[in-house]
Amino acid sequence: MTAKPAIPEVGVIMGSKSDLPVMQDAVEILKSLGARVEVTIVSAHRTPERMFDYAKNAASRGLKVIVAGAGGAAHLPGMVASITHLPVIGVPVKSSNSIDGWDSVLSILQMPNGIPVATVALNAAKNAGILAAQILAVSDEQIAANLLNYKAELARKVEESAKEMEEGLG
Amino acid sequence: MTAKPAIPEVGVIMGSKSDLPVMQDAVEILKSLGARVEVTIVSAHRTPERMFDYAKNAASRGLKVIVAGAGGAAHLPGMVASITHLPVIGVPVKSSNSIDGWDSVLSILQMPNGIPVATVALNAAKNAGILAAQILAVSDEQIAANLLNYKAELARKVEESAKEMEEGLG
Amino acid sequence: MTAKPAIPEVGVIMGSKSDLPVMQDAVEILKSLGARVEVTIVSAHRTPERMFDYAKNAASRGLKVIVAGAGGAAHLPGMVASITHLPVIGVPVKSSNSIDGWDSVLSILQMPNGIPVATVALNAAKNAGILAAQILAVSDEQIAANLLNYKAELARKVEESAKEMEEGLG
Amino acid sequence: MTAKPAIPEVGVIMGSKSDLPVMQDAVEILKSLGARVEVTIVSAHRTPERMFDYAKNAASRGLKVIVAGAGGAAHLPGMVASITHLPVIGVPVKSSNSIDGWDSVLSILQMPNGIPVATVALNAAKNAGILAAQILAVSDEQIAANLLNYKAELARKVEESAKEMEEGLG
Amino acid sequence: MTAKPAIPEVGVIMGSKSDLPVMQDAVEILKSLGARVEVTIVSAHRTPERMFDYAKNAASRGLKVIVAGAGGAAHLPGMVASITHLPVIGVPVKSSNSIDGWDSVLSILQMPNGIPVATVALNAAKNAGILAAQILAVSDEQIAANLLNYKAELARKVEESAKEMEEGLG
Amino acid sequence: MTAKPAIPEVGVIMGSKSDLPVMQDAVEILKSLGARVEVTIVSAHRTPERMFDYAKNAASRGLKVIVAGAGGAAHLPGMVASITHLPVIGVPVKSSNSIDGWDSVLSILQMPNGIPVATVALNAAKNAGILAAQILAVSDEQIAANLLNYKAELARKVEESAKEMEEGLG
Amino acid sequence: MTAKPAIPEVGVIMGSKSDLPVMQDAVEILKSLGARVEVTIVSAHRTPERMFDYAKNAASRGLKVIVAGAGGAAHLPGMVASITHLPVIGVPVKSSNSIDGWDSVLSILQMPNGIPVATVALNAAKNAGILAAQILAVSDEQIAANLLNYKAELARKVEESAKEMEEGLG
Amino acid sequence: MTAKPAIPEVGVIMGSKSDLPVMQDAVEILKSLGARVEVTIVSAHRTPERMFDYAKNAASRGLKVIVAGAGGAAHLPGMVASITHLPVIGVPVKSSNSIDGWDSVLSILQMPNGIPVATVALNAAKNAGILAAQILAVSDEQIAANLLNYKAELARKVEESAKEMEEGLG
Repeated sequence: MTAKPAIPEVGVIMGSKSDLPVMQDAVEILKSLGARVEVTIVSAHRTPERMFDYAKNAASRGLKVIVAGAGGAAHLPGMVASITHLPVIGVPVKSSNSIDGWDSVLSILQMPNGIPVATVALNAAKNAGILAAQILAVSDEQIAANLLNYKAELARKVEESAKEMEEGLG
Repeated sequence: MTAKPAIPEVGVIMGSKSDLPVMQDAVEILKSLGARVEVTIVSAHRTPERMFDYAKNAASRGLKVIVAGAGGAAHLPGMVASITHLPVIGVPVKSSNSIDGWDSVLSILQMPNGIPVATVALNAAKNAGILAAQILAVSDEQIAANLLNYKAELARKVEESAKEMEEGLG
Repeated sequence: MTAKPAIPEVGVIMGSKSDLPVMQDAVEILKSLGARVEVTIVSAHRTPERMFDYAKNAASRGLKVIVAGAGGAAHLPGMVASITHLPVIGVPVKSSNSIDGWDSVLSILQMPNGIPVATVALNAAKNAGILAAQILAVSDEQIAANLLNYKAELARKVEESAKEMEEGLG
Repeated sequence: MTAKPAIPEVGVIMGSKSDLPVMQDAVEILKSLGARVEVTIVSAHRTPERMFDYAKNAASRGLKVIVAGAGGAAHLPGMVASITHLPVIGVPVKSSNSIDGWDSVLSILQMPNGIPVATVALNAAKNAGILAAQILAVSDEQIAANLLNYKAELARKVEESAKEMEEGLG
Repeated sequence: MTAKPAIPEVGVIMGSKSDLPVMQDAVEILKSLGARVEVTIVSAHRTPERMFDYAKNAASRGLKVIVAGAGGAAHLPGMVASITHLPVIGVPVKSSNSIDGWDSVLSILQMPNGIPVATVALNAAKNAGILAAQILAVSDEQIAANLLNYKAELARKVEESAKEMEEGLG
Repeated sequence: MTAKPAIPEVGVIMGSKSDLPVMQDAVEILKSLGARVEVTIVSAHRTPERMFDYAKNAASRGLKVIVAGAGGAAHLPGMVASITHLPVIGVPVKSSNSIDGWDSVLSILQMPNGIPVATVALNAAKNAGILAAQILAVSDEQIAANLLNYKAELARKVEESAKEMEEGLG
Repeated sequence: MTAKPAIPEVGVIMGSKSDLPVMQDAVEILKSLGARVEVTIVSAHRTPERMFDYAKNAASRGLKVIVAGAGGAAHLPGMVASITHLPVIGVPVKSSNSIDGWDSVLSILQMPNGIPVATVALNAAKNAGILAAQILAVSDEQIAANLLNYKAELARKVEESAKEMEEGLG
Repeated sequence: MTAKPAIPEVGVIMGSKSDLPVMQDAVEILKSLGARVEVTIVSAHRTPERMFDYAKNAASRGLKVIVAGAGGAAHLPGMVASITHLPVIGVPVKSSNSIDGWDSVLSILQMPNGIPVATVALNAAKNAGILAAQILAVSDEQIAANLLNYKAELARKVEESAKEMEEGLG
């Protein structure tokens, strides 16, 4: 867990307070990979002006990547991407009245030509955080090194589990 | 076909010029039912500020209903509904790279609590026009009478076809 | 919560008593927005004659909008719309043996040309109520004012939650 | 091909003239199996009163089975079944703006408890005709014999094709 | 509840003992409508020869209709229909590893030309029973009368619930 | 292309002559990999007894693997697997009235516990042939060697295309 | 339950320790059918090199069939099949954030021409084990005999349940 | 169109030559936005070792982002992401035997925790190129400026079309 200096480089936003249990994973993995994060609520549908301002000022405030999570007819990631030229990562959240998550996935993924959103798996806020770190790592060697360690650790844990399974079963 | 006086009461908007062959049906049926219509392009993703202004000023300009068509991750109807308190009718358009139309349907239909969009069937711009006329008819007796005639005509045509089929077949 | 004077302007109907926990939201938001509401059960499949009568007499009884909820092969909204020229709002209800709600959604949404149903999201009776109020507000300034307050309140709550999150997290 | 005496026993109905190329198959197979058929157009949405009358009088007019085809939000088979106690066979028709046929299938198949519709495959009017004949055959020995011949003929054709393939290929 | 005389006219079969909680509804409604029923397990996949014999002998044993329920890749209704010329009603059962019931629905519904299965809604064994009774009623006046009573009772219950709701709410 | 000696080891069967354009690929790749193949039509629905006999005698006739293709509610692969203990490979064929192929895929793939079918991709008869060869190769060194050559050739062609693209583009 | 001699002939692998409750069924049925099994964890995504080595060496280590289970965007079965020429059986596992299992099913089933994976039903590890045994049985008479016993036992149990149901119900 | 200096910063790869008509869009937009691009074929399934080497060496060769397109059970983007720590953008390609593109979308999007792929819409190679440029723009002011111009141009074209439509229609 690293300290959080002055200016955040990743903005993690979500459409509603109820998305926090999912989106929290993005915040945590970003911090553990050494990125400076801010987190807040921005609703495309209930606070369209706030959303407009957030996206408009993101680059000039120093943000480099935005991670946006939303459920149902999820317009937040796409609308933010329509206003800023920063890379926007979209997290489809499986909300309570969602039709199995298909609505969130399709309304984030299927953006028209000209306005991409980097979409990750349903509820995969952790992967959104890692992807944001990979983008920062293009010009930040420390985060790149942290990512390599993280990947090595993933492999190490699988090998450990494999050894346990081979000994205990079969 | 009625004359088109000064102030339009229904705004028909679409995300792209390529949506016109579908959306044209809304304009035509509205005119034939005696409603005053305007039509233009407003892209939520490529012209977010234009979209914002259109929605913000719709009520004060005299519009009473908005019909918005869009394809793919279709955010136009929902974003307009987030800004105005006028009723917004959404037409899911089956665009070229759509996943069978599911993306348009779900990203218009599955709006969160607080911000409804009155969604019609895939590509059903004609029905969007009729629905807009039904809304105007709540306080416009002429349009109400036109709608009753339209319904009677629908029935008459079915009965005519039925007679032909009964005589020619079976 | 406003008083309920003589003649209701919105009829909230549902296919079965088991739809009430969902449809109750439409009744409550309509009342809180100042609309006069009636509520009852009308089953297209088990009481087709009752459905016929309800739809036939709706306009002459003074109703201006109908909100109809049903699940599974949901025919109530579409059949009512086939009989009356009033705007009909359909609420797809996710009933117990539904195939994930797809059946309710598609059998309400995909109406043929000529007979629109204003469809809202799965189980979104609250949005159906707001949409009905938006339709009344076209010719009712009090409800229009209530809707503007409602939208402002939605935004205020998001901003409050956002402030809490910014202070407590990040 | 049998003669068509006075009173038809199977009513083949469809929502629109455009369904005839599909529904024709039901008429033909029924005639070739020796059943007396009538065919007409009855639209649940455009002629609800005609639909009501057709279903209400079907049994007293001597009909024993009804075959109903419709597309999109297909309410005709279910509504007819809600009014008559005769067995109703539903044919989901894949119409032009259908979402891949899912809408027709689900709005015919997923009927609530109490009101069944005997649903066949998408566009499978031929099977609807055979099923109607099977129902008549419960109390009509001639049709039963015709069905047995039909099944034997199906098998004979497969065996013929198989022989050709075995000789020509492999 | 009527007595069960010598020869059953409806055979209710299912692929596995675990389908009984669903299929029981077919047995009960058939008895209450005055039909003579038998019930047993016949697995297309685990006892193909038993399935073959059951279907082969059904008509000569006096059965007039077969109701067959199965889940997953549900082949029982279609295979029975391939062997007998009796009408076969298929009940898609939502089994534990089913993909939301789609597998059962499609593998029962989508039969090829020549071999229909009368498919009812997911888990709708009650409707399968009613449909079987409707088929018997074509030549059995007592069952026809029972069906008319049943339909009247369905309507009566809705009207009762409606009255309660109108008094208690709104 | 190898010679075809006395006893075939792979039986390629299909539900209808119309499946041949798809299923032909299985026959060709099997021959080119050195396997002895027979090919014929066996319809589970139109010739259930023929299907029964084919499956019952397959092992004693010397067959080692069966490749079965079918469309719609595709019961052929699963029914053959229920009768023989040989490995059965199922090819979902996208037939004309299929619902986008989902029916074929699910009714072949979702077999119940105890009776597996080795399912390949939609229309992927070529892969069914390769899989059959891989099964034979477990105890046939010549086919194993042919498979290794085949895989090497696949890689060689990709590398060739890659070189062309790198030179001509970029 | 048979003893496990020196060299395993079936390798059961899975992407994560959390897949074990599902994949355990493959191990158990294989042992009970007399096959020699090994089991371990191999993650295509977290340990790509380990996956590469496992697949590369599988044939030379004496394995004859590989059973691979994975969830979500499940690449393990397909990647192993791309490296070895042994038959690979894929088990789509319904993991926690899966979209109803469709992701696992489609990313295992829909392999391109040249590289088949023998796919079984969602979570159907037991069937994967039986299929692996059927493949071994092509050249192993003991396992073939065990499979015939297993099938006979399946039938016997159904007949037992059927008798109980016929006596207790109906 | 900018010159292409020594070391490419974006690698555009695809599973097969047949993906080029789709993937070409990524190459063109990247060049027009001033990024240095290379393009080649890398098949996860037919050339797993080539894929391994490409991903392993990507960062050390100077690549900063990888754009990978593939269809069906599309494993290329996810496997490359499992080997490199660079950001990987996945383009689901709708190939010929795809099940409506769902297979490509889900097998790219639904990656497990730890290994993200930045997924764009079906066939949306242009958006993949823009997203890659946005990632480079985090540390490349020239590309950032080009992106701002590109966005302004998108808006300008919509406004032009809107003016034409307003004058010619309505």
